[in-house]
Amino acid sequence: MNPAQPKLLTGDRPTGRLHLGHFFGSLQSRVHLQDQHHSFILIADVQALTDNFHHPEKVSQNVLEVLKDNLAVGLSPEKCTFVLQSQVPEIAELTVFFSNLVTVSRLQQNPTVRHEIRQKQALFGESVTYGFLGYPISQAADITVFQAEVVPVGEDQLPIIEQTRELVRTFNRHYGEVLKEPRALLSSHSRIKGLDGQQKMGKSLGNAIFLADSSADTEKKVMQAVTDPHKIRKNDPGRPDICTVYTYHALFQPDHLQTVYQECNSGTRGCVMCKRELAACINAALQPIREHRSQLDEQESTLIEMLLDHTEVARSTSRETLKATRKGMHLLLPRGPGSI
Amino acid sequence: MNPAQPKLLTGDRPTGRLHLGHFFGSLQSRVHLQDQHHSFILIADVQALTDNFHHPEKVSQNVLEVLKDNLAVGLSPEKCTFVLQSQVPEIAELTVFFSNLVTVSRLQQNPTVRHEIRQKQALFGESVTYGFLGYPISQAADITVFQAEVVPVGEDQLPIIEQTRELVRTFNRHYGEVLKEPRALLSSHSRIKGLDGQQKMGKSLGNAIFLADSSADTEKKVMQAVTDPHKIRKNDPGRPDICTVYTYHALFQPDHLQTVYQECNSGTRGCVMCKRELAACINAALQPIREHRSQLDEQESTLIEMLLDHTEVARSTSRETLKATRKGMHLLLPRGPGSI
Repeated sequence: MNPAQPKLLTGDRPTGRLHLGHFFGSLQSRVHLQDQHHSFILIADVQALTDNFHHPEKVSQNVLEVLKDNLAVGLSPEKCTFVLQSQVPEIAELTVFFSNLVTVSRLQQNPTVRHEIRQKQALFGESVTYGFLGYPISQAADITVFQAEVVPVGEDQLPIIEQTRELVRTFNRHYGEVLKEPRALLSSHSRIKGLDGQQKMGKSLGNAIFLADSSADTEKKVMQAVTDPHKIRKNDPGRPDICTVYTYHALFQPDHLQTVYQECNSGTRGCVMCKRELAACINAALQPIREHRSQLDEQESTLIEMLLDHTEVARSTSRETLKATRKGMHLLLPRGPGSI
Repeated sequence: MNPAQPKLLTGDRPTGRLHLGHFFGSLQSRVHLQDQHHSFILIADVQALTDNFHHPEKVSQNVLEVLKDNLAVGLSPEKCTFVLQSQVPEIAELTVFFSNLVTVSRLQQNPTVRHEIRQKQALFGESVTYGFLGYPISQAADITVFQAEVVPVGEDQLPIIEQTRELVRTFNRHYGEVLKEPRALLSSHSRIKGLDGQQKMGKSLGNAIFLADSSADTEKKVMQAVTDPHKIRKNDPGRPDICTVYTYHALFQPDHLQTVYQECNSGTRGCVMCKRELAACINAALQPIREHRSQLDEQESTLIEMLLDHTEVARSTSRETLKATRKGMHLLLPRGPGSI
C-alpha cells in the first residue's frame, strides 16, 4: 500500500459466494487496479442486511467466502486493505450526519434506487424500508469515510456516485472543505449472461458458475446451458449470435472464436461437444483460482485475523475523517488544553 | 446513581437556552424523578442538527447552556448521567441497524412526525430531509442504547414511544431478546403559554422567559405580556379566564389565585400592578436558579470535563448494548479464543 497512490474503494455485499459475473464484472479489473491504487475492498455486511435483515446468518456466513473469492482471484493483502463494514462505526456516524443533507424525494428519484426497489418488490411489498431507501447515503459514507477518490462502477451505478458527489459538495458548502469528491471509474467490463440466457448472472438466480464450484459441477452446469432453440440435431446449423454458450466462448477463448462461429453456423459443431469444450476452457481458467481458494479454506482463522487487522488499519483513516467532520460540524468540545 | 433503580432517559435539543416552558414541562419533574431513577440526561446535539444542519454553531454554542440550565434547576451530577449525544457512536450504529426494520410509510404516518413536518414547512419546503423523517428511529436508538425502561413524555410525544416499542419488538423477534421495551411516563406537567398568549412558549418565538434571564429582563417581558384586550383602563373589570398573565399567576402563586381572580374580575386590580406582582413572584422563584447558574458560568471547563466524563460512563452501557446487538445480528467475527 502506497499512500501516494490515489485511494480507491470497491467491494461486495456478502450475501453469497462470488461467481463468473463478478469475475468479469469487477474482480478482474480490481486485480489490475490494485497496482496503481491504494485499494479499500469493503465487505459490506451492514449494507447486505438492508435486504437480508431477516436472514442475518446468511450475511455472516458469507463474509469469509467473499474474502476468499477476492484473494483467490489475485487481490493481494499487501496491496489492498480489506475492510469489514460492521466494524467501522464511523460509517454509521457519517451516514447519520449525511442524512440531514438529502431529501426523501431526491432519494426516491435516484434511478438506481427506483430500479432496485422495483426488483425487491417481493420483499418490500407496499413500502420500502427506511434503510433500503437510504442506501445511497450509506454508500456515500463508505466512500468518503475512507477518502476514496476513485470508485469503479458499472453504468447502472453511476447515479449513486453522482449522488455521493452532490452530498460531498453540500457537506463542504455547509461545513468547510472536509470531504473529497470521488469520481466514478466506469469499468470497461464484460457483462456475462446467466447460463439460462438471462441478461444477468445472479447469486440467487440458479444460473451462475461460482468461483468455488468444482470442475464437475462446472461441467454439469455448462451442459445445461441454453443454446439456439432451433438447433435440435447435432448437424443443424446454429445461430451463435443468439446462443448463450457462444457468449461464454467469446470470454474464455477469444482467439478461437471465429472457428466456433463458423463450425456452429455451418452445422459441423454439435452443442454437446461445444459445451464440453467450453467447460474445459472454464475449468482451465478457474483451476488456479480454485487451488488458491482451497488453500485459503484451510486458513480461516488467519483470514479472520487479517480481515480484522486490515479493518483496524482502515479505521485510522475513518477516524481521521470523522475528526475533521466533527470539527467542521462544530461537534467537538475542547477538553483541557489540546485534547480530543 | 444506583444501578438497581430503573433506568430513565430524557433530555433536550441544544438549540437555545431553556425557559419556563421547559421548567414546567419537564425540568421540574426531572428533579423529582432523579431520586427514584438512574437518569440519563441526553444533550441531543446530533438530533438538533436535523433541523439546524445549516447552523451547526447554534447547536454547539448551546450544549453548555442547556447543561447549566439542567444543573441550575437542581439536577445532580451525582444522581444523573449527562450524555453528549455526538460522542456516542453506538447511537448512530443502532440507528443504522434499526433503519431496516421500519418502512418509510410507517414513519410518514407517525402523527408526531406529521405534525412536526408541518411545523417545519418553511425549512423543508416540498420535501423533508431523510434525517428528519427518520428522527423517531434515532430517538429509539437513544432510548434503547442506554437500556432505558422509562421515558417521561408529554402526550404529543406518545407516538414516538409507541414506535420505539414496536421497533424493539421487531428487533427482538428477528435477533433474540436483546433490547428492552421502554414505557412512556406521561408527565402531569403544566403547559405554560407564551407571553404573547400563544399556546406554546418557544425558544425562537420571542415569547419566552429564559431561566438565565435577568430580573430586569424578566420584569420587562412580563410588563409586555398580553391580557384581556377589553380591559383598557385600570378599573375595567377583567376576564382572568382569557388572560395569559392570570395563567402565570396560577403557576407562581397558586395560593393567592382566588384573590387575583376576584380583584381582576371586580375591577379593583389594574393590569400594571398585576404584572408587577407576577414579575416579582417569577423573579423570587428564579432567583436561586439564577444564582446557581451564574456560579456555573464560572466553571465552564469543569463542566466540559464533567460532561465528557459522564458520557464515557454512559458509553459503558451503550457499548454493552451494541455488543449484545451485534451478537444477535451475527455481526461478530471470532478473533482467536474469547476475543472481540
